[in-house]
Amino acid sequence: MPLERVCYDCGSRTTTPVARCDCGEPLWLATDPSALSTFDWDAVTDAPGMWRYAPLLPVDGVPADDAGLLHAAGGTPLLRTPALDDFAGARVHVKVEGEHPTGSFKDRGSALGVAAVAAGHAGDVSAVGTVSHGNMAMSTAAFAAAADLPCLVLVPADVPEARLEVVAQFDPTVRRVAGDYGRLYERTLDVGPDHGVAFLNSDVPLRTAGQKTTTLEICEAFATGADTASSATASTPASAPDAIVFPVSSGGHASAAWKALRELRESGVLDAADVPSLYLVQAAACAPIAEAFEADAEDVTPVEEDETIAYSIANPDPPSGKRALAAARDTGGAVLAVDDDAIRTAQRELATEAGLSVEAASAVALAGLQELTTRGTVDASDDVAVVATGTGLKEATGATVEAPTVDLADVDDELAAFGDAK
Amino acid sequence: MPLERVCYDCGSRTTTPVARCDCGEPLWLATDPSALSTFDWDAVTDAPGMWRYAPLLPVDGVPADDAGLLHAAGGTPLLRTPALDDFAGARVHVKVEGEHPTGSFKDRGSALGVAAVAAGHAGDVSAVGTVSHGNMAMSTAAFAAAADLPCLVLVPADVPEARLEVVAQFDPTVRRVAGDYGRLYERTLDVGPDHGVAFLNSDVPLRTAGQKTTTLEICEAFATGADTASSATASTPASAPDAIVFPVSSGGHASAAWKALRELRESGVLDAADVPSLYLVQAAACAPIAEAFEADAEDVTPVEEDETIAYSIANPDPPSGKRALAAARDTGGAVLAVDDDAIRTAQRELATEAGLSVEAASAVALAGLQELTTRGTVDASDDVAVVATGTGLKEATGATVEAPTVDLADVDDELAAFGDAK
Ligand SMILES: [Zn+2]
Ligand SMILES: [Zn+2]
Repeated sequence: MPLERVCYDCGSRTTTPVARCDCGEPLWLATDPSALSTFDWDAVTDAPGMWRYAPLLPVDGVPADDAGLLHAAGGTPLLRTPALDDFAGARVHVKVEGEHPTGSFKDRGSALGVAAVAAGHAGDVSAVGTVSHGNMAMSTAAFAAAADLPCLVLVPADVPEARLEVVAQFDPTVRRVAGDYGRLYERTLDVGPDHGVAFLNSDVPLRTAGQKTTTLEICEAFATGADTASSATASTPASAPDAIVFPVSSGGHASAAWKALRELRESGVLDAADVPSLYLVQAAACAPIAEAFEADAEDVTPVEEDETIAYSIANPDPPSGKRALAAARDTGGAVLAVDDDAIRTAQRELATEAGLSVEAASAVALAGLQELTTRGTVDASDDVAVVATGTGLKEATGATVEAPTVDLADVDDELAAFGDAK
Repeated sequence: MPLERVCYDCGSRTTTPVARCDCGEPLWLATDPSALSTFDWDAVTDAPGMWRYAPLLPVDGVPADDAGLLHAAGGTPLLRTPALDDFAGARVHVKVEGEHPTGSFKDRGSALGVAAVAAGHAGDVSAVGTVSHGNMAMSTAAFAAAADLPCLVLVPADVPEARLEVVAQFDPTVRRVAGDYGRLYERTLDVGPDHGVAFLNSDVPLRTAGQKTTTLEICEAFATGADTASSATASTPASAPDAIVFPVSSGGHASAAWKALRELRESGVLDAADVPSLYLVQAAACAPIAEAFEADAEDVTPVEEDETIAYSIANPDPPSGKRALAAARDTGGAVLAVDDDAIRTAQRELATEAGLSVEAASAVALAGLQELTTRGTVDASDDVAVVATGTGLKEATGATVEAPTVDLADVDDELAAFGDAK
């Protein structure tokens, strides 16, 4: 079954399995209109993880019971964490995307993409590929391995070998490519299908379709009272948070969130007044979308990239930049940037106050929320979902270790001192 | 409310918050008899993760909705993975314990322990501690941070500082201790409470109470058809897998599994004939429990430890060794050992065939299953749950990286070559 694709910008539709509209903008996969018109929270299935939203996903039903890893995508916790409220200046709910098989939200899009390719929904392709050397490369390689699909991972020529080990464990074909990485990203989308390879790059229709489920899960938790810790009373749960804060890089995840919210509105699940505002946060060292937002520009101008600890979201020429701007503006949100000091502080706050180890690129979301409440854009009474996109387990933490040595014979004294001090 | 503790071996009971029976053996927390007598799968709650089994846990109900990290423990996927059947020689279902906030099953026991301490169920203590420098240290520190409890982590004097960074990010008090680590383990259990510190060491009653939930989740998935990919027909789901395979180190997790199965039998949820056999697997370089099992010994004799890639389960003097032996024997299971080559092969198989990155100490379970089917102990038609206790994301994978460089101009040729070869 060919899947219909639709342009958010000019409205064009096509069943050709392309990633880009003729107008140049990235496409979304269209959702079945009859599924949309009948969707509500009672229509979700009891399938595992993200597959509970099968009616809104462009595959026929839930993967078979023996589909292995596919069933492990989605279904991450949304944690109400009052310990972060003072720091953030709002009522914080953390969406822990690190609880995925490969440690990041990328598994949602990889699962959807791999399932669609295996089911023949993605055109005449029988392999997957990706242009990435981070979370997305690892995720794509893992899901391809589980589905027994060949996988091609294209990385920059200068990536340290140690960074590729986590990808290589799944045994994909890996090639370093010398040349402009942004051009490679688009080139693979153009010619991949000619060679039978569906490139699951960051903002392609299949990947963003899977990534809608982050936002669907957040809204369902509020609507059904699974997150009864929202400020609404238990008898009338809030139908959605007031805001959702995402890190933004290519703009793919942000555009997926926007698509999910549009669908919830179209189906009547969310009233216009209840649609959460989407706030998108970049690292200041590489913030082309935030700069365009500030300048009231309609599109994003590529920037020169500086070093940042949030390297995995440092994209100087984001392919869905214009779409991310539209997502923020359409929902009454914003795009902003935070510096590395703020990111480091937020990362430390998440660990020491909430017990959550997240990568620096995820901590930008909490840092961004703090900036928004400082500005007065977000209120202290607002329920805000902060999307922690990836685990900190893959990175060196850089934490200072202070661990003096004591003798076993003196351990009672040490316990006494600790007990007195606490 | 003081929690009653019971000895699996001599049957003694006590409400004193001690970890050991007067007979020397480790204690379990007793489960409320009235909850046991009324328990069935319909009695589970819809609370998040492990808290759905609240009636069988020694805390009063589910942690408050705003309890943050506590809600992220448990609820991991059980994946039917036919791609591993040929390798294993049985029908494999992988329990993915790496999908926890700190990447291992240790979060179940940390959550229960921290919740119990915070609720005043663990005696006159207001802090937690642990003797560990691995997954358990990280997990305990994270959950203590989230619950705002002081935390003391005692590590061996010679642990490399880099290994402590993942623990230090949560800001516990860390001390290196010079002296015998096994004696330190027991000493902290003895004197910790005197100083107001509940030591959540590997096999203590609070930790094993939380770790029961791994097995409860596995059995529930079979019984309710959430894992309908079992060999039983969909209309009459198997009430449990035929076997469950765990890596074994201290014996704490194994004893928790045994306790869970005993409770399911006592409540009438499982018939005697349906109780899964518990198979426990060690690394051959440090296998005191397997050696005792082979020798038909009643108790475990400490061994000299050799190097193994499964270092995180290398315990030369396991405190719950005798209890682990009893667990295997009582359920018709076994304890066995596999060498590092077999572990490496199983780890690679999990990654390349199932897309699962696990630590070496987890891969021992799949290697052990292969050995059991080779021996004829487990049949090809058996449904076997393999517990992958911890993620591979924290370790260097050691995977060989083969990534030649191509020019962007030649990438079409590269895609063509990949397309032809697949
Ligand atoms: Zn268009
Ligand atoms: Zn006893």
